[in-house]
Amino acid sequence: MPKTVKVCVPGTTANCGPGFDAVGIACTIYNELELTLNRSDKLNIEILGEGRGIIPSDEQNIVWQAVQAVLARTGKSYRGAHIKMTNNVPLARGLGSSAAAIVAGLVAANAAVGGPLSKQQLFELATEFEGHPDNVAPAIFGGITLSAVYQEKAHCLRFLPPGVLEMVVAIPAFNLSTKAARQVLPETVAYQDAVFNISRTALLIGALSQGAFGHLQCALEDRLHQPYREALIPGMRDVFQAANKQGAYGSAISGAGPCLIAFTQQNAAPIGEAMVAAFKANNIDATYVILHIDQAGARLIDA
Amino acid sequence: MPKTVKVCVPGTTANCGPGFDAVGIACTIYNELELTLNRSDKLNIEILGEGRGIIPSDEQNIVWQAVQAVLARTGKSYRGAHIKMTNNVPLARGLGSSAAAIVAGLVAANAAVGGPLSKQQLFELATEFEGHPDNVAPAIFGGITLSAVYQEKAHCLRFLPPGVLEMVVAIPAFNLSTKAARQVLPETVAYQDAVFNISRTALLIGALSQGAFGHLQCALEDRLHQPYREALIPGMRDVFQAANKQGAYGSAISGAGPCLIAFTQQNAAPIGEAMVAAFKANNIDATYVILHIDQAGARLIDA
Repeated sequence: MPKTVKVCVPGTTANCGPGFDAVGIACTIYNELELTLNRSDKLNIEILGEGRGIIPSDEQNIVWQAVQAVLARTGKSYRGAHIKMTNNVPLARGLGSSAAAIVAGLVAANAAVGGPLSKQQLFELATEFEGHPDNVAPAIFGGITLSAVYQEKAHCLRFLPPGVLEMVVAIPAFNLSTKAARQVLPETVAYQDAVFNISRTALLIGALSQGAFGHLQCALEDRLHQPYREALIPGMRDVFQAANKQGAYGSAISGAGPCLIAFTQQNAAPIGEAMVAAFKANNIDATYVILHIDQAGARLIDA
Repeated sequence: MPKTVKVCVPGTTANCGPGFDAVGIACTIYNELELTLNRSDKLNIEILGEGRGIIPSDEQNIVWQAVQAVLARTGKSYRGAHIKMTNNVPLARGLGSSAAAIVAGLVAANAAVGGPLSKQQLFELATEFEGHPDNVAPAIFGGITLSAVYQEKAHCLRFLPPGVLEMVVAIPAFNLSTKAARQVLPETVAYQDAVFNISRTALLIGALSQGAFGHLQCALEDRLHQPYREALIPGMRDVFQAANKQGAYGSAISGAGPCLIAFTQQNAAPIGEAMVAAFKANNIDATYVILHIDQAGARLIDA
C-alpha cells in the first residue's frame, strides 16, 4: 500500500513576449498536493485555496487523470485515493495552473509507486496531457526552460540566469481561457513580423542567459500574439507603460493572459501598484504579486 | 598627416538556421586592410587574394566608401589614399565578405583620424551601409552576436559560449547574391512556421550560451528561409545529411549561402570531406575550411 506523498509545484509564466510557445519560467508561487492511493474504490478530493468550488472533485479532476496516466504507464492499478490540493496559483489567468495540476498529479503518483519514471518521461507525459510543453517544462524542471516538440518528443533545455530578476505579476479579476486566447491568433503572418520575433527571441534568451537584463527592453517586444490578444485584456498597453514608467525593463502577457508580467531589478512594489492602478483606470480590478525564479521545479516535500 | 593603419576583420556566418537576420558568429577567417590617407587626389587600391580582378578598385570600392563615411562623420577630408586589401573571405558565398570590407574601412579610417568613434557608433554606421546588422555585428564585436534594429538604432548583445565549437564550412564554386537569395522568400508565412522558428531560435541561443551543444540537433532546424533557398543550392539536403552522418550536430546555410556550415565538436575533417563529396555528387565543385569562433572582432594590427 503506497503511503501519502506530498509535492510542491511552481506556477509558471510562458511566452515572455516574443518567445511564443517556447519560453517558460518557473515562479515562486506554489500549489501543494497530497496524494494517498488506497485499495478502496472511493475517490476523495479536497480543494483548498484557488479553484475551491470550481475545480471538479470527481473523476474529471485533472490531478486524478494525471495520477491515472502514471498508474497506467507503470502497470499499477488503484481506484481509490485521497487527494488534497492546496492552490496558490490563480486559475485560468496565465500562470500555468493547469500545468501545475498535471505535473503535481504525475510527480505525486510516480513517487507513490516508487518513482519508476524519470523527469524526462514525466515531462513527455505532461506535454501529452497539456498539448504543449511550454508551461509543464518549467513546472517540472524549474528555472528558465526552452522547449519544443522534436522528432515527436517533448524537448527541453533548462538554465538559470546569473543575477536576480524580479517578476511583478498583475492579476486582473477575470478569467481568460487559453482556448479563447488562441482563437484570436491568425493562420498566417507577415514575413517581417516572424523575423521581428526571431530577433527578439534571440535577444531574450541572450539577455536572460548572460544576466544582461538591460537588453530586455528591446527583447520583450512581440508582434506575433500580443497585438492580437490586446482586445481580450482591456488596458494592456496602459499597464505595460505604467510598469516601464516605474523602471521595469519591459512587460508581457503571462502565458495566454490575462495576467501581465513586468521584469525588473528595482522598484517591484511601485511597479505592481502602478500596474494595478492602470488596470483600475480601465475599470478592471486587479491585484499584484512579486515573484522570483523558482530553481527546483516540482519536488517532494515532507507529508 | 595620418600614418598607415592596418586592421584585421573576421569573416562571419549569419542566421545559423532558425535565427534569420538576428544571429551572427565571427569566424577565424580574416581579411586584412592597410589604409594610408594622403593629401593627394589619387586613390590607389590594391587587391590581393579573394576578389582580385573582381572588386572595383576605383571610387566604387566599398572599403573606400566606408572610409569616406567615417571622414564625413568626423569632419575630416582626404581625397587621396593607398588601400591594400588582403582577402581570405570568399566573395558572395555567405561568409560576410561585404560586412568585412565595410567594417575594415570604417575601423581603419576611424583609427587613421585618431579614433573619435566608439565601437557602437561604428556598428550603427556599418548597419546603415550593409542594410542589416547580422553580419556587421560579429565582424565588429567578435564572438556570437544577437542583433536587431531597435528604436531605429542597431542593437547588439554579444557573448561567448563556454566550450569549443568547430564550424566546418563547405564552399561551393559558385556565387549567390544576397539579393537573389532574398527574392525567393515569401511575404507571408504560416503561423505555425513562425512559431517553429521561435522555439528553435530560443534553443539555439540556449545551446550556445550554455555550451549545451547537443541541443543544436533540434535547434538548427529552420522553416523560414532554408526551404525556400534550397533550390538555389543544389545538393543542400545531401550535404546536411553527409555532415550529420559524420557526427555533426547539425548544419545550416551560412548567411544567404551558398556556403553550408556544419557545427561539431568532433571529426571536423571527415565532416568537411563528406560535405564536399555530397556537393560533388550533385555536380558542384566545392572546398571546405574548418573554423572556430573569433573572439575579438575587428582589430588594429601592426602595420
